Amino acid sequence: MHYEKIFEEIFRDLQKKEDKGEVATYIPELASVDPNQFGVYLKTVEGNGYSFGDAEKRFSIQSIAKVLSFVLAYGRLKSDVWKRTNLEPAGTPFNSLLQLEVDRGIPRNPFINAGAILICDILVSELENPKDEILAFVRALSGNDSIDYNPRVAQSEKEMGNRNYAMIYLMKSFGNIENKIDTVMDLYFHLCSLEMNCKELGSTFLFLANNGVVPWSGERILSPSRTKRTNALMQTCGFYDEAGEFTFKVGLPGKSGVGGGIVAVHPGRYTIAVWSPKLNSKGNSYRGMLFLEQFTTVTNLSIF
Amino acid sequence: MHYEKIFEEIFRDLQKKEDKGEVATYIPELASVDPNQFGVYLKTVEGNGYSFGDAEKRFSIQSIAKVLSFVLAYGRLKSDVWKRTNLEPAGTPFNSLLQLEVDRGIPRNPFINAGAILICDILVSELENPKDEILAFVRALSGNDSIDYNPRVAQSEKEMGNRNYAMIYLMKSFGNIENKIDTVMDLYFHLCSLEMNCKELGSTFLFLANNGVVPWSGERILSPSRTKRTNALMQTCGFYDEAGEFTFKVGLPGKSGVGGGIVAVHPGRYTIAVWSPKLNSKGNSYRGMLFLEQFTTVTNLSIF
Amino acid sequence: MHYEKIFEEIFRDLQKKEDKGEVATYIPELASVDPNQFGVYLKTVEGNGYSFGDAEKRFSIQSIAKVLSFVLAYGRLKSDVWKRTNLEPAGTPFNSLLQLEVDRGIPRNPFINAGAILICDILVSELENPKDEILAFVRALSGNDSIDYNPRVAQSEKEMGNRNYAMIYLMKSFGNIENKIDTVMDLYFHLCSLEMNCKELGSTFLFLANNGVVPWSGERILSPSRTKRTNALMQTCGFYDEAGEFTFKVGLPGKSGVGGGIVAVHPGRYTIAVWSPKLNSKGNSYRGMLFLEQFTTVTNLSIF
Amino acid sequence: MHYEKIFEEIFRDLQKKEDKGEVATYIPELASVDPNQFGVYLKTVEGNGYSFGDAEKRFSIQSIAKVLSFVLAYGRLKSDVWKRTNLEPAGTPFNSLLQLEVDRGIPRNPFINAGAILICDILVSELENPKDEILAFVRALSGNDSIDYNPRVAQSEKEMGNRNYAMIYLMKSFGNIENKIDTVMDLYFHLCSLEMNCKELGSTFLFLANNGVVPWSGERILSPSRTKRTNALMQTCGFYDEAGEFTFKVGLPGKSGVGGGIVAVHPGRYTIAVWSPKLNSKGNSYRGMLFLEQFTTVTNLSIF
Repeated sequence: MHYEKIFEEIFRDLQKKEDKGEVATYIPELASVDPNQFGVYLKTVEGNGYSFGDAEKRFSIQSIAKVLSFVLAYGRLKSDVWKRTNLEPAGTPFNSLLQLEVDRGIPRNPFINAGAILICDILVSELENPKDEILAFVRALSGNDSIDYNPRVAQSEKEMGNRNYAMIYLMKSFGNIENKIDTVMDLYFHLCSLEMNCKELGSTFLFLANNGVVPWSGERILSPSRTKRTNALMQTCGFYDEAGEFTFKVGLPGKSGVGGGIVAVHPGRYTIAVWSPKLNSKGNSYRGMLFLEQFTTVTNLSIF
Repeated sequence: MHYEKIFEEIFRDLQKKEDKGEVATYIPELASVDPNQFGVYLKTVEGNGYSFGDAEKRFSIQSIAKVLSFVLAYGRLKSDVWKRTNLEPAGTPFNSLLQLEVDRGIPRNPFINAGAILICDILVSELENPKDEILAFVRALSGNDSIDYNPRVAQSEKEMGNRNYAMIYLMKSFGNIENKIDTVMDLYFHLCSLEMNCKELGSTFLFLANNGVVPWSGERILSPSRTKRTNALMQTCGFYDEAGEFTFKVGLPGKSGVGGGIVAVHPGRYTIAVWSPKLNSKGNSYRGMLFLEQFTTVTNLSIF
Repeated sequence: MHYEKIFEEIFRDLQKKEDKGEVATYIPELASVDPNQFGVYLKTVEGNGYSFGDAEKRFSIQSIAKVLSFVLAYGRLKSDVWKRTNLEPAGTPFNSLLQLEVDRGIPRNPFINAGAILICDILVSELENPKDEILAFVRALSGNDSIDYNPRVAQSEKEMGNRNYAMIYLMKSFGNIENKIDTVMDLYFHLCSLEMNCKELGSTFLFLANNGVVPWSGERILSPSRTKRTNALMQTCGFYDEAGEFTFKVGLPGKSGVGGGIVAVHPGRYTIAVWSPKLNSKGNSYRGMLFLEQFTTVTNLSIF
Repeated sequence: MHYEKIFEEIFRDLQKKEDKGEVATYIPELASVDPNQFGVYLKTVEGNGYSFGDAEKRFSIQSIAKVLSFVLAYGRLKSDVWKRTNLEPAGTPFNSLLQLEVDRGIPRNPFINAGAILICDILVSELENPKDEILAFVRALSGNDSIDYNPRVAQSEKEMGNRNYAMIYLMKSFGNIENKIDTVMDLYFHLCSLEMNCKELGSTFLFLANNGVVPWSGERILSPSRTKRTNALMQTCGFYDEAGEFTFKVGLPGKSGVGGGIVAVHPGRYTIAVWSPKLNSKGNSYRGMLFLEQFTTVTNLSIF
């Protein structure tokens, strides 16, 4: 299909409407991003790629990285991750402590902040050098060795991370954190600081559209069953308290980040990564969601 | 495929394990059901049907009917239903008032009790004779004119319906109910009392697997876009606070009822209805969920 | 003491400041009250009375009546009221369902709406003709046979009572309501419609300042221990989620109503009733609270 | 009055009944306390003292110290403490984060953990050397220079303080903490570790029964108005989610600690301190509460 043409048409259509979102401002590195940038990239499991706009410009992938740390833990864990985190949609904003207290320190799912911090605690327990191994894992998935953390972003996240510290201390008070808080949080803040562009994102997630195998390398990352489950988890929990909205309008499993990126997966077919920095009130890319809604409507390429 | 054979194998496998569920006991009509009954039926969009066990024995479909009343409202409404109900997963049990108060009388989605009551209020406003018209709608979808309400179940539901009354009064206090409470609740309790068997359920829901069109009659029930959205809504909201679990393990949009029935939809392919009366602690069929999990795992027929 | 002079001075002082409150508007009978009326009455246990302003003008005492129905139940109950209602401050607005659900149908205390409805249920169980007997009880306490319900107010309360209906149905769903809902609610709405003036209010509550005995008649209403406990309950629970504020600033047990009335008790000494229709954001009389704060500060007549 | 005799009679009466409480076990210093110790001390504003049992044995006063730190801040603050903490009863357990999140980092009152941590933050801002100055303040109030922190208790509190850290980080995320978290928490944990006996406690709190003035030294600690308000605050907020129960049964302002101590104040008359290490399910001394209930009932010496 002529995806580039479709991309351009949808983009033009979006240009006619006001971008009602707001760039994230809680750290200077996000606040200073040019809000008018826009990129999209679709990659099929057969290896064909289609891009538009700023698809090769890197941005802070933020919470999108929570899928990658989860997959790393899920793929190698002997112990049962589901004893330490639940897998239900949260129904509340992404950084709520209410639910974490009611649920006695068990995060609702691994894609909200508390759950991703918990996965970091698991990785600190499991890996020799978790920061390096996550990076190696992401580089292998994307086939790109220049992907890296942004240390200034990691530092800013730490400085603004009081609420995340509140969460890890609360989980620790319930006995659900094994390692030193500073070690776990250092990993978490670095994870949030990963930078990729749309092309790299689309390539990195392609194994989730390909039954758990990286198409170009043939490496199996997850079993078919766990691949299915990871996609299912993105479907119900990938968009904080807007997971229903995204499922309803876009109809693909996906994950967003406050850097304005969204990656979505059509199992058996393709991945699509879109980037537009302005966020809606729920913290998801305003134009990114509209773009994907129109894309799956025009192409009739949702899973539902 | 030899679905009957797969059904039998999975059933035998389940027979080896204890059925840890409990039959619903809040009304006598459900409490007295033989708990060991089990039926399953799969119907493809091409019209092929595969059944096993008590697939022709009728049971109380209970909350499964909430999808049907929603579709009836969604397909004909000029006004915007999404101003009166949200579409996010609830994250709390199906009959919680907590969230309804925090959200100022707006139900989280049309498939929890409060949302289904709200849809009944809409139908009372829109239809001349809503009880008859719902029945006519269901009969037309299933191609079976003997489907009916069970008046004793409706009466028992009313007698045990204090919490549902609490919800409608709370919604009314926020101005989100238009009609007389007794009229709306009478419709709601009758809706819950619909009885079908697995064959009828599978046939009734087939339009959702067929892009919105009833295969045998060619009648369009919903536009393709609204069909997709209804399936998406079942995916995120069809199983109360176990929607994530069902999505994760089964990987199909579906809806359950406390009568022990579950219906699931594979868009473009088939519907599958399963019935086993014992419920897990979340109110969903214990064996029904296990059966569907094994079925989509064995056949690799999930959407993810 | 020259209480009238003190009353006048405080009143003049209040006149200089803006009355920032708003008259209750949810029923027409309250919305149409002249907002500038102001009355106060102090009565000592020795029988001396001091009044100022509109002290003989009747108004809707609303929730103040919840103390009277509670005392009637508490004084004659063989069974233990504390199995059916708690006695802790609510910490949430007066009509919250959140807490009632978390506490499984047990109201936080008998002075919030849910608790007062529960007391009505107890009175319906205990009394032959509760509506008449409450009226007889209040008339006996005040020594005034012309005190009565206002049927138009009772009717308006019923029409606007959806949230109260939500509460009673929720309590019933937990098995904490024994009688027919309409009977209980009819009593509750009538209770809210009682009308008194400041003089009558001050006289009616005087037994609570006099160790449980009506001074002029010598009739014992409550034992000394239960009198102490009723005063204690007013202290912690008499002002919805502003109980701390009232205790802190005024330092007397008391009870307010949305008609703008407040009655307070100084055990062993006096009662004081004040009326000013405009309410603060918590539903308590704006000027009434300021008046009592200044009064106990000037006279140093608080219990703390 | 022959208070010693009354003390003995009540004590004997309590001895006949099972002590259903449990000693606090979250830190070894509390877990290892002999649970059968019992002391009581009453001191009148005229200077008469009456003691019984282990009234001169020191114990960890724990949360009782929160009143002292509050008074120190309240007495010297130019700025308004009520912008940073509320003064309403919590209605929830003492260490809940739920409410702190809903209230956006503003503690319900200064006597729950979050509020006491906030007061520590204020003292760190206001005082040159807060740890020493609190100690000097307490020594001056009690007239006893040997009162001190227990560094082992402070250290244990810190090690078990994850939930308290969660609270301060949450408050900081809302901008309601000014100083370094470790500095504030060090002060807080030391505050909790103060040790006194019943005699010292009763003497220390006597200014609250004496209109704000230490009787033997004549030093004014708080203005009469602020003294009244501090007592009022203890009344509504001194016993976590059992404030209503204590007010109802005992009828005096007071404060408890998980070391098993309770101090209560009868304004204008006396203070009474009781110590019995076993706690009820709300974290207040089981026998201490029963003792005070019987004491105010027998002597009719409550404020209500």
